[in-house]
Amino acid sequence: MTDVMNGIDILISEVGPRDGLQSVDSIMPTEAKKAWIKAEAEAGVREIEVGSFVPPKLLPQLADTGEIVEYARTIPGLQVAALVPNFKGAENAIKAGAHKITLPLSVSETHSQANLRKTHAQVLEEVVKIVDLIKTLPQDARPHFEGGLSTAFGCTLEGHVPQAKVVEMAEKMIGLGCDEVGLADTTGYANPVQVKNMVKAIWAVVGRDKLTGIHLHNTRGQGLANVMAALDLGLDTLDSSLGGLGGCPFAPGASGNIITEDLVFLLDSMGLKTGIDLEKLMAVRDIVTEAIPDEQMYGFTPDAGLPKGYVQTVNGGTGWGTGN
Amino acid sequence: MTDVMNGIDILISEVGPRDGLQSVDSIMPTEAKKAWIKAEAEAGVREIEVGSFVPPKLLPQLADTGEIVEYARTIPGLQVAALVPNFKGAENAIKAGAHKITLPLSVSETHSQANLRKTHAQVLEEVVKIVDLIKTLPQDARPHFEGGLSTAFGCTLEGHVPQAKVVEMAEKMIGLGCDEVGLADTTGYANPVQVKNMVKAIWAVVGRDKLTGIHLHNTRGQGLANVMAALDLGLDTLDSSLGGLGGCPFAPGASGNIITEDLVFLLDSMGLKTGIDLEKLMAVRDIVTEAIPDEQMYGFTPDAGLPKGYVQTVNGGTGWGTGN
Repeated sequence: MTDVMNGIDILISEVGPRDGLQSVDSIMPTEAKKAWIKAEAEAGVREIEVGSFVPPKLLPQLADTGEIVEYARTIPGLQVAALVPNFKGAENAIKAGAHKITLPLSVSETHSQANLRKTHAQVLEEVVKIVDLIKTLPQDARPHFEGGLSTAFGCTLEGHVPQAKVVEMAEKMIGLGCDEVGLADTTGYANPVQVKNMVKAIWAVVGRDKLTGIHLHNTRGQGLANVMAALDLGLDTLDSSLGGLGGCPFAPGASGNIITEDLVFLLDSMGLKTGIDLEKLMAVRDIVTEAIPDEQMYGFTPDAGLPKGYVQTVNGGTGWGTGN
Repeated sequence: MTDVMNGIDILISEVGPRDGLQSVDSIMPTEAKKAWIKAEAEAGVREIEVGSFVPPKLLPQLADTGEIVEYARTIPGLQVAALVPNFKGAENAIKAGAHKITLPLSVSETHSQANLRKTHAQVLEEVVKIVDLIKTLPQDARPHFEGGLSTAFGCTLEGHVPQAKVVEMAEKMIGLGCDEVGLADTTGYANPVQVKNMVKAIWAVVGRDKLTGIHLHNTRGQGLANVMAALDLGLDTLDSSLGGLGGCPFAPGASGNIITEDLVFLLDSMGLKTGIDLEKLMAVRDIVTEAIPDEQMYGFTPDAGLPKGYVQTVNGGTGWGTGN
C-alpha cells in the first residue's frame, strides 16, 4: 500500500458505503453511491470500503456491490476495498477487481454464528480457500487479503473477549496466509489501554507489519480517545464513516462508526497529513442526505464548523496551534 | 486538595450546575439543584462547581448560587467550587463558604470584553483585590483561588490565540497570588498536540503544581481525545458536565462540555479510579430532565449502556479488558 500512503501520515479508510449502508433501512441508489465515492475520492480520501459481497437477500442495500467495485476501480489513485463473508464473496470481489478484501472473523464465536452463521473452524476453512484462489492469480491481480478480527474488544452476546483468544485467531489467520489482520471494535467496548495491550500482544506474535489498522466505533463516545491510543502505537490506517453512518446490525445497541469528518479534523489539527480537504469532505454529506434523507447523519465538526482562521494541512497549514 | 484526591487517580469536577445551567434558557428550581448536587455527590463525585456569583439580571438561572453553595457545604466530603466574575462575586462566594473560587480571564481580550466587559488589566486588578481579601481570612477559611485561562486554545472572535499570550497571563495570575491556574478550551478548538504544548509551556514558567486541571469542550467531538493528552501529561483534574449540558453563551457555535458519564466510563474502563459509581451517576440524569424537560441531555454511554459483564472500579473491577 505504499502508493496509497505517499505523502500522508495516516490513511483514512472510509467505510460508510459498506458499514454505514448495511445498517440502515434505506437503500441508496447505485448512481448516488457512485457520486458519493467519487466525491470522497476527490476530497482526498484514498481508500474506501465500497461494499460487501453478501447475498442480496440478506443485505439488499449492498446488492450492487459488484458494479460499485468496478466503478470505483476507474477512479485514479483510489484503493478499493470490499468485505467478503466467505469464499464465494471473495471470488466475486476478485472478479470485480477489488484491491483489498476483508474476511471478518468474530472472535466471539457466539457472535460469529449469529453474524456469519459459521464457527471459527468454518471461517478458517474459507480463509484457506481464498488464499488458494489468490495464489492462482498473477501477482499484479492479487488483492490484499485482510483477516478481520471482529468483536475483538468485547461482545454484546458473550461480554468479555479474552485477549489470548484474539491473539490466537490473529496467529491462525496470518498462519493460513492472510496478508494482514485488522482489529475491529464491533461493539464499541474498547478503551485506550485495551487497544494498546491488544495491539502489542498481536504484534508480539505475528509481527508489526501484519497489523497496521484498526476499526473503531463510537458507541460509548470513546472513538477518538481510542484513536489516540492507535496513534501512540503507530498504527497508520483508521476506519471511519462519513456522518457516522452505520454500525453492526447483529450487535444490539452497538451503532456508530467513528465520524470521518471529526477524525480528519483531529488528525489535521495535530499536523498529521491525511491528504483530505475537510471543506470538500463536509460537502459530500449533501450527496448522502439527498439520497437517503430518512437516515441520521452525525458530526460535531460539520455542525460547529472549522475554527476561525483554521488552515488545513492540505492547504499548507501545519495544524491548529501546534506551534506558537 | 489532598483529601479530595484520597483513594482516586483522577478528580472529576462536575460543572453542570454552573456551566450547564448558565447556557440554557430553562431556570432550574433551587430544590432540584440541591437534589442534583446531593445525588451526584452520593454517586461519588467529589468536586462540583455549583454556580456563579454573577448579577442575577445577567444570569437569572444562577441567582440562587449563594444558597446553593451554603447547601452544598453541608454535604460531607464534597469540594464546593464557584465561579466569580469579579471581586464582588468573590466576596459573596467566600461569605457563602465556597472551598474553591475561579476567576476567569479570557486570554483573547476581545472575548474578555464581550464576556466579562473587562480588559486584561481590569481583570488582573480584580485578582489583586481578591488575593488581598483572602489574606485577611484565617488560614482554614481561605478558599483555593484559581485563575481561569479561558479561550486558551482559540477564540471564535479572534481566531488563533498565541501560546505565548496564554503563558504570559498564567504567569501574571500566579505572580499576583492565585493558588493555581486552570486551562479552558471555551470554544472547543483544542487538539491533543496543542494541549500538550500549552501545558508544558505553562509548567515551564509557573511550575507543575500550579496547573493540575483542564476544562475541555466537545464542540468538535475532540473532548475525550484531548483528555487522553491531559492524562499523558499527568493532569489529574478534569471538568465535565452531566449530560453534556452547557457551553459558552458568548462564543457563538461553541457548545457542549465533555459529558461526565462518557468521561467516567473512559477513565474507569482504563482502570483509573474516579470514585464514581457509573450506574448511580447515570440515574442522576432523571433529576435534571425532570426539572428542565425542555433541555437536551447528551451521553453515548447512557444511551448504549455499560458493556455486558462490565464491573466498575468502585465495585472491585480493574477496568474493561485492560488485563487478559
